[in-house]
Amino acid sequence: MSAKPFLPRGLVVSCQAEEGSPFHAPAFVVAFARAAELGGAVAVRLRDVVNVTAVRAATTLPIIALTKGSYADGRVLITPDRRDVEQLFASGADMVAVDVTDRVGPDGVHRLEWFRRVRNEHRLPLMADVATYEEGLKAAEAGADLVGTTLSGYTDSTSKVRLDVPDFELIERLAKELPGKVVAEGRIWTPEQAALALRLGAAAVVVGTAITRPVDIVKRFASTLNR
Amino acid sequence: MSAKPFLPRGLVVSCQAEEGSPFHAPAFVVAFARAAELGGAVAVRLRDVVNVTAVRAATTLPIIALTKGSYADGRVLITPDRRDVEQLFASGADMVAVDVTDRVGPDGVHRLEWFRRVRNEHRLPLMADVATYEEGLKAAEAGADLVGTTLSGYTDSTSKVRLDVPDFELIERLAKELPGKVVAEGRIWTPEQAALALRLGAAAVVVGTAITRPVDIVKRFASTLNR
Repeated sequence: MSAKPFLPRGLVVSCQAEEGSPFHAPAFVVAFARAAELGGAVAVRLRDVVNVTAVRAATTLPIIALTKGSYADGRVLITPDRRDVEQLFASGADMVAVDVTDRVGPDGVHRLEWFRRVRNEHRLPLMADVATYEEGLKAAEAGADLVGTTLSGYTDSTSKVRLDVPDFELIERLAKELPGKVVAEGRIWTPEQAALALRLGAAAVVVGTAITRPVDIVKRFASTLNR
Repeated sequence: MSAKPFLPRGLVVSCQAEEGSPFHAPAFVVAFARAAELGGAVAVRLRDVVNVTAVRAATTLPIIALTKGSYADGRVLITPDRRDVEQLFASGADMVAVDVTDRVGPDGVHRLEWFRRVRNEHRLPLMADVATYEEGLKAAEAGADLVGTTLSGYTDSTSKVRLDVPDFELIERLAKELPGKVVAEGRIWTPEQAALALRLGAAAVVVGTAITRPVDIVKRFASTLNR
């Protein structure tokens, strides 16, 4: 909420290894975060206290931190628990990403209402991960420091969104309403897509899989060659 | 030299971390090799006995192994030492890549002549890394099992070759003369470039930096965004 933007314009590298990946350990997350810094990223985004603690010791880049909550119905929520918000900040996160979609959390509380409560108690930087234009506007009105397009395509109300390309329409519409606040995230595979997101008004661009998930990068090459 | 090709048609992942990279340790090379296997690669290519030993224990994929020799005049030769060839095979390599360019080794011996001697003593699979069409033909004639376009752009006689794109002309010309034997390698950044190399006749395509050098991948995104 300060006049100075939280992030310089540029690349945020998401360093999140999935369970089962050969890279699923803090030492690998640290190596990717150091690669982000050496390569010229402006911030990293990563999950879980154990990784935030390890990365905090290895880089001076801003850390956008999160946890994930997975539920029996298939929903995955971003940092659904207030204790996680506090622990992530205590571990060295500079900003915490939280779910501000039109969904209900495990506590039965609508995420926007939950976000308002957390916002009222914490002055620390919060990034709202949303799936739609309306969610983005409401999150900003409720005091989100940054609004990320992260969840477009992954909620019931956006299940018809194409999953093979970034949601450029959402990025552009939100950036027009919220200049300097919109972070483009989700399915950005190429430098050209990242540059387009900036031209459409995004303040920063998060790239994850294309940099930090080697199994998926190999699959993308292999499947093209096997066609 | 067998009727059966050494490699199925497809993707070879080069897993080579440079010194100074956060990924410069056998544990990281192993993780990239496992990612290659999980993602559908047909082989891995990597350097140094310590890494071959570690990767051999972690994957059943064929290993194309090498060492590098760097000299005061700036030359970098691929596996210039016969003892290295033997040690790499002893460590579990399935094939060893050697330099068959029109250059002289540290022993004063022209690489083609050196290759002929090694070939005469070893029936084990050898891949010839070359920089030009003529070198590729001579290497095949001398008994190379595979011929890689790896060194195009990195020798004195090819210093005018463009370093921002793969050498598709060399791949196509060699593949026409040596069907089933040519491996496209060098500056392949995208699945589309890899697929084009196969269409031009390559038997397999080696991709390294775009998958296994996160610092360089980050730089590529960051430099596009900072333009």
